[in-house]
Amino acid sequence: MKLVCSQTDLKTNLSLVSRAVPSRPTHPVLGNVLFQANAETQQITLTAFDLSLGLQTSFPAQVNENHTFTLPAKLLNDIVTRLPEGEITLLGMEDEGDQSQDEFSVTLVSASGRFRLRGMSAEEYPSLPEISSDGALQVPVEALADGLGATLFAASTEEAKQVLTGVHVTRQQDSLEFAATDGHRLAVVNTSQEGIEGASDGLEVTIPARALRELERMIRIQKEDAVVTLRCDDVQVAFELGQQRLTTRKLDGNYPDYNQLIPKQFSKQVTLERKRLLNSLELVAVLADQKNNVVKFSVDSENQQLSLSVDAQEIGSGQESISAQVTGDSIDIAFNVRYLMDGLKVFKGNEIQMQLNEASQPVIFNPLEGLKMTYLVMPVQLRD
Amino acid sequence: MKLVCSQTDLKTNLSLVSRAVPSRPTHPVLGNVLFQANAETQQITLTAFDLSLGLQTSFPAQVNENHTFTLPAKLLNDIVTRLPEGEITLLGMEDEGDQSQDEFSVTLVSASGRFRLRGMSAEEYPSLPEISSDGALQVPVEALADGLGATLFAASTEEAKQVLTGVHVTRQQDSLEFAATDGHRLAVVNTSQEGIEGASDGLEVTIPARALRELERMIRIQKEDAVVTLRCDDVQVAFELGQQRLTTRKLDGNYPDYNQLIPKQFSKQVTLERKRLLNSLELVAVLADQKNNVVKFSVDSENQQLSLSVDAQEIGSGQESISAQVTGDSIDIAFNVRYLMDGLKVFKGNEIQMQLNEASQPVIFNPLEGLKMTYLVMPVQLRD
Repeated sequence: MKLVCSQTDLKTNLSLVSRAVPSRPTHPVLGNVLFQANAETQQITLTAFDLSLGLQTSFPAQVNENHTFTLPAKLLNDIVTRLPEGEITLLGMEDEGDQSQDEFSVTLVSASGRFRLRGMSAEEYPSLPEISSDGALQVPVEALADGLGATLFAASTEEAKQVLTGVHVTRQQDSLEFAATDGHRLAVVNTSQEGIEGASDGLEVTIPARALRELERMIRIQKEDAVVTLRCDDVQVAFELGQQRLTTRKLDGNYPDYNQLIPKQFSKQVTLERKRLLNSLELVAVLADQKNNVVKFSVDSENQQLSLSVDAQEIGSGQESISAQVTGDSIDIAFNVRYLMDGLKVFKGNEIQMQLNEASQPVIFNPLEGLKMTYLVMPVQLRD
Repeated sequence: MKLVCSQTDLKTNLSLVSRAVPSRPTHPVLGNVLFQANAETQQITLTAFDLSLGLQTSFPAQVNENHTFTLPAKLLNDIVTRLPEGEITLLGMEDEGDQSQDEFSVTLVSASGRFRLRGMSAEEYPSLPEISSDGALQVPVEALADGLGATLFAASTEEAKQVLTGVHVTRQQDSLEFAATDGHRLAVVNTSQEGIEGASDGLEVTIPARALRELERMIRIQKEDAVVTLRCDDVQVAFELGQQRLTTRKLDGNYPDYNQLIPKQFSKQVTLERKRLLNSLELVAVLADQKNNVVKFSVDSENQQLSLSVDAQEIGSGQESISAQVTGDSIDIAFNVRYLMDGLKVFKGNEIQMQLNEASQPVIFNPLEGLKMTYLVMPVQLRD
């Protein structure tokens, strides 16, 4: 076997698939990357798969014959990133003329030196799942980036919360709706960019947040006008973008009917500057973090202002005031400061709106520009 | 009490002294920063002291009366860095008109809000040691930066190694010599810039590396022509630079007579490119790190080249070749790859020289430009 490729291609593609290599593999071969060299297409395809998330990518190479092998992902990555730019040749042991060596060893030859790495048989490597579906949905990367960027933060990070550890994606006429909730807050984004095409209206799927964070990373380096193809069957979802492919298991179970959680009417409304509120939250969070993360909002209709306060008795207390347009009666209401900060960070634009009823009922935050996004936060009960 | 200062001044000076606040204080008050407000000089002096390292700095403020107090360093720092630019007012509880509050509380008032923090009495705060010495040494920051930057890395990080956890500084005619060793390698730098003045020729002191790392940080933001004043007595060393002062305990015990460790004659010499060698070391280190950190150097007089190789049997092996000017016989010799990388990183300039005798004897690395530096590394014994 003899493969010749550029250091840049190998480095870029290795670092991409390496994200699906588990840090503590349940089976040794899962710590490796699968190489599939194809003499016909003159390409190398790299695959990494932790049995849930799979990443695959291809790049051009001189390939003298079809060959498959696996090499340890981390070690290979560490070496390739440090090799000088230029050509890299990969040789199998039979070409090395060294029969004493392990049959799964591969030698990397660069301008300045050579590295032999011991691999494992490609036969042991599990296959990426195939999607048995005809329909496919085309989604522009911009719509995908908007939807993921504004919902992923709200998904639960507790494995036990199962379906809530994912983002729920629903196809609606000309748009896609993304939703994520951990039971305390809910983010819903509706992306209605042109270019969403294909698949029936019925598409509805919950996709693990972990896989979607990798998808987010994958599309970040793409051109704005690129389009991702989404396919899914009963068990798996696949995203395809050029030579790159990401597969993941779907999350089973019924996703909560979140639309019924969002109040339709509000008795109070506050409009204020987003960055100003975020800065004040970051300030009071210093004290709130010392206690129970609770910040009290005092909506003051008379003075047209919002005051944020935290009282961490034994340590200290803090208060910030922000001018705001308030309609409806004054009210005191409390929140987990971290939830508010998470949401305000992904909003775009300068002004936001907060809509509420009573101190025990859900509150809605909306950006007034940019994304079509609804962020619902459950208040915390204030003790007197 | 009423103090008014700029957020920028308070932030900058707090972050400077906070480096001497222990993360786990042995006494609660050591987790605080001492404020000394002086109505006469219209300055606030901040002090942090972990009983070994002390940092002190002053900055202008409106001070209505002399006052001392302490506030929790981390919390205060977290708040002040997030406050908007502009004036900050610090009020004592008596000015707040709130007798119910703790007497050591201080309130920070900014344009947008107010934060009350509970402090502790300044009486509990230990005093920074005074240096009872007449003589002082003036050292330009450039000389100090050179000396520290090229030796600190070689000091031992093991507390048990006592005197080896410091850098040894010796005054020699018009220069200062800095030396550090952990028993496996030794870095010696002679800084002979103009401007080193004062103190007798006899100055010889071992200073804890931890304190010197803070000194390095302190002088990094200074102008090149700034001058540091060094004072020491039997127990303490102090560095003064403008309004800033760093004090530390000296390390007791006799520092090894390192000059006698440096061979005077060599039978072999290798001259090569520093970055080329460093790149190759970083490459073979990927494999060496998997085993015992050992890299083998094969100095090849006939081909005028140096080959680096690592054999991590069960994982793989690697080899890099670099062209070099070799005088003397060919030789195989082995090193801890990390020691070599540490040294080559602080060298400046492009070319370096390696001087050696036998495979079991100390090897000297020198930069051919820039610093006057000697880096001695003990080889590792090669097993056949």
